This record gives sequence, structure tokens and C-alpha cells, in this order.
Amino acid sequence: MRVRIIVNLKPSVLDPQGKAVRAALKSLGFEGVDDVRVGKVIYLNLTGVDRGQVKEMVEEMCAKLLVNPVIETYEWEIVED
Amino acid sequence: MRVRIIVNLKPSVLDPQGKAVRAALKSLGFEGVDDVRVGKVIYLNLTGVDRGQVKEMVEEMCAKLLVNPVIETYEWEIVED
Repeated sequence: MRVRIIVNLKPSVLDPQGKAVRAALKSLGFEGVDDVRVGKVIYLNLTGVDRGQVKEMVEEMCAKLLVNPVIETYEWEIVED
Repeated sequence: MRVRIIVNLKPSVLDPQGKAVRAALKSLGFEGVDDVRVGKVIYLNLTGVDRGQVKEMVEEMCAKLLVNPVIETYEWEIVED
């Protein structure tokens, strides 16, 4: 099973990487780009894990390693069975 | 309009960050995690851009700045109007 976890900075947290991308897009002549935010996407290939256990497992992995809950939020989904 | 671009390393490209995450998950006791890949997610807030122009604009931004086509692939979608 393949799980995709998207980790984003909370809206209240400054995102210097996003600001740099925005400035670079502007300098390349792209108009109308108001705001840019950059996050991480993590794909996990899980084997021998039932569908029923996945939610708990992903939440535990996010809590223990993948996400810093002070500054980040996450969403996840199963992208392939 | 809010666009989400997900940028991933091509499957043939080594992903040391993914390998490190996998090893860390294993050392925390998570079994069954076969493979981990880490990519980027970029959110763009666009104003004054019509829906008809978005595809071309996003493809151009990816080609010129956001994606390295030698080692990366991307997918994008409009996540909010």
C-alpha cells in the first residue's frame, strides 16, 4: 500500500523558501503570483499493514518523526492499494 | 486561485532523504515500511490569472524554475478557485 503524507508549515509560520520562490518567479516575469508556500511530500510503501491499522500507524509516525506539530500540519491519504 | 504542484524525484534517482526517513522509522519500531520517497509540494496563490492560462503558466514555471526535468517529475492541480 502506498501512502502519501503532505506536510505544510502552518499559515502563521514564515516560509522563507516560499518567499524566495515567489521572488524568483517574479524576477522571471511571472505576474500574479501572490503567495508561495513550500512543503514536503512523503510517500511510504507499506507492506503487511492492513487498511484498518494504517490511520493509527501514519498518525504515530507523524507524531514521532515526520511532523513538527508546533509549526506544521499534515494531511495524508492512501494513493495506491 | 490556488495551485498545488507536487515535485518528486524520478523513481530511478536515489533519494537519500527518503532512505534516512525509512531508517529512522525502522529504528522507532515501525515495521513494514518498505520504501520512502520525499518530494516537495509548492502552493501558488495566483490572482488575475484565468483558468485557461493556468496550465501554460504552471508548465512554464516548472520548466524555468521549479522542477529539474533531468531528475524530477511533477504533477499539479487547482486546489481552490
